Amino acid sequence: MRLRNVKGAKDLINSYPKYIVDILEDTKLDLSEYNKNNLPVHMEIGMGKGKFVHTLAKLNKDVFYVGIERFDSVIVRALEKVIEEPLDNLLLLRFDAADLRDIIKPSSVERIYLNFSDPWPKVRHEKRRLASPTFLKQYKEVLVDNGELHQKTDNQSLFEYSIISINNYKMTITEMYLDLHNSDYTGNVTTEFEEKFKNKGQRIYKLTAKF
Amino acid sequence: MRLRNVKGAKDLINSYPKYIVDILEDTKLDLSEYNKNNLPVHMEIGMGKGKFVHTLAKLNKDVFYVGIERFDSVIVRALEKVIEEPLDNLLLLRFDAADLRDIIKPSSVERIYLNFSDPWPKVRHEKRRLASPTFLKQYKEVLVDNGELHQKTDNQSLFEYSIISINNYKMTITEMYLDLHNSDYTGNVTTEFEEKFKNKGQRIYKLTAKF
Repeated sequence: MRLRNVKGAKDLINSYPKYIVDILEDTKLDLSEYNKNNLPVHMEIGMGKGKFVHTLAKLNKDVFYVGIERFDSVIVRALEKVIEEPLDNLLLLRFDAADLRDIIKPSSVERIYLNFSDPWPKVRHEKRRLASPTFLKQYKEVLVDNGELHQKTDNQSLFEYSIISINNYKMTITEMYLDLHNSDYTGNVTTEFEEKFKNKGQRIYKLTAKF
Repeated sequence: MRLRNVKGAKDLINSYPKYIVDILEDTKLDLSEYNKNNLPVHMEIGMGKGKFVHTLAKLNKDVFYVGIERFDSVIVRALEKVIEEPLDNLLLLRFDAADLRDIIKPSSVERIYLNFSDPWPKVRHEKRRLASPTFLKQYKEVLVDNGELHQKTDNQSLFEYSIISINNYKMTITEMYLDLHNSDYTGNVTTEFEEKFKNKGQRIYKLTAKF
């Protein structure tokens, strides 16, 4: 599904420069052009169809949300949500997070969300996992001091990998939920994937960590 | 059950000084008096009725096993196993692990096992949890360089706590199993508790870490 072309996706993306930026080259993006009130920036990497970040942006007007997704075909679903319900404090960015620090300024983000990221189960694809040291290094650079990384997943192997990777990177783990939906955690905002897994009775894992 | 008195437990313990030492005061124990072949020492803290450590001692003759348990009523069950099937490479020690470093020499243990430890769920009892910083500090002292801590539990909250505690103690996590019995882990030796939980279909968590 993720790779399916959505007809006219590029056209739609280019029609709403206020809501979405299609980043074709590795150029630094000045978020302050969009974040005019200089709000703290929370960023979701691999936001998919955008339910999570759009919901949060509605709930928390004192935070500027950035949703990153590399696939046109998926990000247009998030864009449709914004067109239907525009929000001043939400910007969508289409680019590959592998280029994160080429595009986002250092020490400019307070929080990064990784939700239901692709598990990339093959060992040779380890570097593509969003909790691999390659990515952690980038997060460290774009996050402010004490900035937080929030991860949620249904994928047990990815979560096991993430704990070890975050541990070996000497990050501090501040929250750990091995069964989020049967925990005392309050205020959870679900993603599209999370709703599906929840309905199937699957466990959701969550951790929070900082550098 | 753990607190139940077993009639004659003390007498039985005192009758087998070759198999079990009842440590009543905080005196350094010279393990080499028992570990005559100077084998690497693996230690289980809170061994309960001793199935795990007794099985391992039978399987691995090149390791000297030490089983620690503070309750007479429980450790006699382990002693009964040894009386029935004596093993040169297994020593039982009755003492409270809170006194570990007063009794065990520094840098003398290669591996520590924590299996299905008491979760001590109340926050005010945190220090009693066997993965609390208070205990990790002691393990660090008695373990050799690169010595390993192996933890297994069915208790989700204890495991969440342990991951955070071990991570924040700057230990390195080398293994992480969020569902041990449905994993590729081979050679697992079960404890009495583990058999019960397994039969109920409950998840078993396991991690390995070092300082």
